This record gives sequence, structure tokens and C-alpha cells, in this order.
Amino acid sequence: MSGPGAPVFAGVDIGGTTTQVVLCDEELKVLDRADTATPARSGGRAMIAATLDALAVVRARTPGRLAAVGVGAAGVVDAASGHILVASDSFTDWAGFPVTAALRTALGVPAFLDNDVNAFLRGEIACGAAADEEDVLGMTLGTGVGGALWTGGELRTGAHGAAGEIGHIPGFGDLPCTCGGRGHLETLASARSLRARYGERTGRELTAREVAEAARDGDADAHGVFAAAGAGIARAIVMTAGLVDIGTVVIGGGVSGAWTLLEPLIREPLAAEPPISGHPVKLLRAALGPDAVPLGAAARARHELTAR
Amino acid sequence: MSGPGAPVFAGVDIGGTTTQVVLCDEELKVLDRADTATPARSGGRAMIAATLDALAVVRARTPGRLAAVGVGAAGVVDAASGHILVASDSFTDWAGFPVTAALRTALGVPAFLDNDVNAFLRGEIACGAAADEEDVLGMTLGTGVGGALWTGGELRTGAHGAAGEIGHIPGFGDLPCTCGGRGHLETLASARSLRARYGERTGRELTAREVAEAARDGDADAHGVFAAAGAGIARAIVMTAGLVDIGTVVIGGGVSGAWTLLEPLIREPLAAEPPISGHPVKLLRAALGPDAVPLGAAARARHELTAR
Repeated sequence: MSGPGAPVFAGVDIGGTTTQVVLCDEELKVLDRADTATPARSGGRAMIAATLDALAVVRARTPGRLAAVGVGAAGVVDAASGHILVASDSFTDWAGFPVTAALRTALGVPAFLDNDVNAFLRGEIACGAAADEEDVLGMTLGTGVGGALWTGGELRTGAHGAAGEIGHIPGFGDLPCTCGGRGHLETLASARSLRARYGERTGRELTAREVAEAARDGDADAHGVFAAAGAGIARAIVMTAGLVDIGTVVIGGGVSGAWTLLEPLIREPLAAEPPISGHPVKLLRAALGPDAVPLGAAARARHELTAR
Repeated sequence: MSGPGAPVFAGVDIGGTTTQVVLCDEELKVLDRADTATPARSGGRAMIAATLDALAVVRARTPGRLAAVGVGAAGVVDAASGHILVASDSFTDWAGFPVTAALRTALGVPAFLDNDVNAFLRGEIACGAAADEEDVLGMTLGTGVGGALWTGGELRTGAHGAAGEIGHIPGFGDLPCTCGGRGHLETLASARSLRARYGERTGRELTAREVAEAARDGDADAHGVFAAAGAGIARAIVMTAGLVDIGTVVIGGGVSGAWTLLEPLIREPLAAEPPISGHPVKLLRAALGPDAVPLGAAARARHELTAR
């Protein structure tokens, strides 16, 4: 069904630099999309206004009756109340902001909020690489390392909304982490860390993408940095398999762009250390690219309407 | 309500050396108990026969209508079908044995099977130290290190029945583990490992209990061995809190008998490395002693009857 009366869902990814809006149908097929700069320094009201402007653009040119809107946002969120709880320094007046209430008031439809990594995993399970899997670890290798956990066919957010934080648990060496801890996966496998670890070895300043290129060109230091990242990711998978008995891991984020380099560096240590269950974990690269977060947010909105 | 017609539940712990049977009322109050040697070398039929004999003893002297029986057994079990999947070398003809079918046929009441560490955690949550907690890691420090996970008010067994295996995930150094892996918590915190680590330091052969006594008497090596165990347990708690956002950990098993020695050695590193959620994890010593497994098995049986 399509046309003016067909229900459509909006999915929004509010990132530190860009806000992305996707309009999709009930099967999560993308009908239209729009991007806008995130006015992160201008506060929550301005950020929601920018979201509404981008949404107005796609609604004006794409028919359909807006059924609900889902938002994925960086930081710690209260998925039940739709508030931002903790935001990074790059955002002004964002922590505490009632995201879903603002959108509901402006649009007159139900609105839902997820952490962006949780939305990423929802998207990859709803219509991406991990479609219909029951027990999945989602991992995003970006500036930092994000994680999300799906068990028994449901997103597991935990008692304090902090479940799945695979980037920030100990057991990965002893390097200091951005979060204040030590020996976290983020110190090995984030874009920032790949750059830093390569700089420590060589004194040279390359971006993570350039380190990947150097590794492919035979630079032993660059390869060593990625091998340490791959071993760390494999260890994180084995830990999660042992603790939560996941069957699948799906990996996204900018660093996963170097998949042909990274994949064998994960698979090799993973094969050498099978999970206690004896069942190997399925390793998947994320399939939806930048659509994963907005489509996952839309999937949440669709799920909430169906569950009512 | 009590008397001949009052419903009672039987809980059974089939261990490598002893089989323990508990009869309890609907509130899990222990009405009677009996022990018998486990004929582990004589096969599944003999082990069930020994269980039935012990159960007959308590039923003969304690009034009540048997409503159901729950069993906790070491090894990997299929909690849905009631079969033992994997048993240790100390058992003969036990892997593959249909435990619940044998009991159901003999007793004419529903029967249920759990892994013993899962039963331990069910018991401590049903009527022990962690009563009514929602998100709990259970840890048994015995000959080995066992683990069980309770999230959102339910036991989480995982896709392959291997969730909660906190004793056998990497990230705890590099010592070889009994399971064939390396760097698992079991290499630091089991009775066998405490004995081995102390032996490596001193060349002396003490039991884990004797190592604990030596530590209390000022033996620096013994204290160091327990400090490493405490640090490993703290790390396991932080890992689980980051991955599953648990609020509580409950620790049982023989080694937890040295609680006054062990507790501060867990609390100190735990306080130095708060979970990513910012919420400290509640550290509890198991309260039910050897009754935890049979009472947890009985709690499972009660739960299954209620849920029907």
C-alpha cells in the first residue's frame, strides 16, 4: 500500500555533526531521506527544530500518513520517558531534554527515543545483516566503541540503561580509556585509538583510514595496530558469548569500512578461542551503513505501535 | 496450610559425591531433608533410584501432597527437555539421561531440571540473599567457578544453555584453565586454583581452606593468592555490569566460606573501578548454604506449576 493515506514512519539519527531523517513504509523500505547539520551548540530546542525542518522537507515531497517517529541519539538516554540523560561535551543543553515530548507536541504522533547504538542494532536486526537473529551483540567502531545487546529477541537495556557497553569493560590490556577506565576495548579498536596506537609506534600522525591503507600496503606497524584491534574484538565476542550466549555479532561504524583488512584479524583469534557453549559466533558486517540508526529508530516506533 | 493434603515440593541437588533432597512447602520453607551418596559411577538409572530412595524417606515421615519435583545437576543440561547434555568425567552414563522423564514416570508428578549453578541462583533469589532482585549475577566458587545470570526478573540461559559462564571467559591474565582456555577467572578464584597458585608461590601443598587460614595468620603468599582471586572476582563483576547492567552479585560455594577474608579483597578493586552505568553493584554472600540448589530447583518447579 502506498499513497497519501498509507502509514509511514520517520526515523531520525541525531549525531554530533549531522542529523539524518529517513521516511520509510511499514516494511521499513526507505521512501525518502534528508540530512541537515546538527546545531549541537544551540541547545535541544534548536536541534529538534532542525529535525522538524528536515522532516518537513521529506514529508512535503513524499506521500503518506505519518504514523510515528523514532529517534536515535548519542549518549545515555531514558528510552521509557524519552529524555536525554547524559550527553557528550559537544552538545549544549541536551542532557535532560525531553526529546519525545517535543516531537509529539510538534507532530501530533507518538515519538520514541533510543540510544544510537541500540537503534543501530535494532536496524540491523529489523532489516539488515542480522535479520531475525535472536541473540546478537551489536558493536560500532567509530570515534569510540559502542555496544548494544539483543537477547531472546529483545533489546536488553539493563536496569540503568547501560547494558551492552562492550567498549568499556576491562580485560583488554592496561591502556587508559577516554572514559577514565583502563584496558577497555575502546583503547584498541576505535578510530581515535587506531590513530593513537599507530602514532605511539611510529611517531607519525595518520587517520584511522590512512592506517588501514598503510596496513594494506605492507606497513608492519599499521598491520600490528589493526591486529591488536582484531584480537580485542575477538576477545569481546568470546566474553559476550560466555556471559550472554549470543549467537551472532554485527559490527558497524567507520572503522568497519576496513572490513577486508579487519575481518581475518578478528576471525583468526576467534577460531583459536571457541566460546564455552561450543557454538561458534556468527560474525557479520553491518549492512545498512548510515541508515542503520534511523531505520532502527523507525523500527522501534513501528514495534511500539504494533505492541499496543 | 499444612497436613496430608497440603501441596509440597521436592528439590534435589545431584552432586558428584552427594545427592541432597529437600521437601518444602509452597513458601519454600524447608519441611524435611535427606542426603545420600551419589552412585555417580553406576549410571543414570542408579542415580535416579538413589534420589527416589532419599525422597521416599522424607515423604514417609513428612505429610503433604507432592505437587512437583525440581532437580539441579552439575554439567550442561537441557532445561526444556529435562536431559543431561554434558557431564563431567566423574559421572558414568549420565550425559543424555532423561532425568525429568524418569522422575515423572516414577512419581506421577511434573519434574524439572536445571543446571546446579542456575538452581543455586534461583534459590538465592527465591528465598535467599538476593530475594526479589531483578538483575543478578550468581557466582559459585567451588572446585571450579560457576556462573548464572538473572536479567529482568528471569533466568537467562542463552541460545545454547551457556549464558552466565563467568568462570570461563578471557580477560583474567594468561594462566591455563581446566577447560582448555587461558586467562579465565577459574584460574584465580576456584578452590583448585587457590591451592595451585599457593603451591606455585611457596612449593607447599595446602587446601584452599588452609590457604585462607594462612592468609588470616599473616602469610603474605596466601594473602596474595586471595587478593588475586578478589581482584579477578571484582573484574568479573565490572565486566558483567558493563555488558548486562546487573545490579547485584551473589557469591556462594566453598571458597565463599572465607568471606571475611575475601569480601574486602573484592570490595577494594570494585570501588576503584565503578561500572559504566555509574551505579555500584550490590555484593552479597549467598545465604542458603547447601540448601540453595535444592530450594532453587523446588522454586523452579513451583514457578512452572504457577505459570501454567
